[in-house]
Amino acid sequence: MMRILGVDPGSVCTGVGIIEQQAAGTRCLAYSTIRTGNADFNQRLGIIFEEIHNLMLEYRPQRVAVEKVFVNNNAESSLKLGHARGAAICALLQSDVTIAEYSPNAVKKALVGRGHADKAQVAHMVRVLLGLPKLPPADAADALAVALCDQHHYQTSLRLQQASA
Amino acid sequence: MMRILGVDPGSVCTGVGIIEQQAAGTRCLAYSTIRTGNADFNQRLGIIFEEIHNLMLEYRPQRVAVEKVFVNNNAESSLKLGHARGAAICALLQSDVTIAEYSPNAVKKALVGRGHADKAQVAHMVRVLLGLPKLPPADAADALAVALCDQHHYQTSLRLQQASA
Repeated sequence: MMRILGVDPGSVCTGVGIIEQQAAGTRCLAYSTIRTGNADFNQRLGIIFEEIHNLMLEYRPQRVAVEKVFVNNNAESSLKLGHARGAAICALLQSDVTIAEYSPNAVKKALVGRGHADKAQVAHMVRVLLGLPKLPPADAADALAVALCDQHHYQTSLRLQQASA
Repeated sequence: MMRILGVDPGSVCTGVGIIEQQAAGTRCLAYSTIRTGNADFNQRLGIIFEEIHNLMLEYRPQRVAVEKVFVNNNAESSLKLGHARGAAICALLQSDVTIAEYSPNAVKKALVGRGHADKAQVAHMVRVLLGLPKLPPADAADALAVALCDQHHYQTSLRLQQASA
């Protein structure tokens, strides 16, 4: 049983999702959106840190995966996103788990088969792959997608190891 | 006795400095530069978090002050700096101390009297005000300057309170 936490960080909404690979298939254990609301900016970072830290303690995933960010042209939003992502990563580092990072295109490719699929397609595939009764909210869907992407990469590397052994 | 930790965050070098206001004047208890070297970027964030967390536990400052950052035109460096600053702030939030933030100009104004003093003048004033035997390294000097700026603001607000009481 392999448990993977996926994180899609943002300063306003941070998506998180936990999947578990079981004998019968891959199941979603939990997903949510950490909303930092109107809190003072530093307090928002504290909320992201605490919530992710608590998730790590509660679910003890063997793997964690975070969405890589694009450097966009807006330096101010990059600075804010950097703070949020730094807070999330610090929370993950509190457990001794390697952090995998995947670009949005790698995530899309793993789930939909092409790097430029739109978000709705990704969310749809997340729902199908995990057999969810309804579409998760956008940020949580992205987080689950990152976790599924990590699972895909992990299984591929396992197969490569077995083939070369 | 009031103890203040000043932090000047950066993804490569993070300056830290601790001052203590004593009956005989303000003294520097410690300063250093947290160098994250060539480590993997996420590990660097972990180093910043751990070192600041340890400083907080060792010195238990009553106040902490962090340099505010300018949004510059470089989105990539803003993103990196954001991560580092987010890590530093998360470490500070582990203790229940309010985080004060000051712009570089506010720090310069508090120490040198003008908002556009150069870094060498600020470092010189840090040395004079704290009676240091030599100039601290640039990042540590900036961190001590932020702590001194916070002390200045704190004393001013105390005086205002006393005057209105």
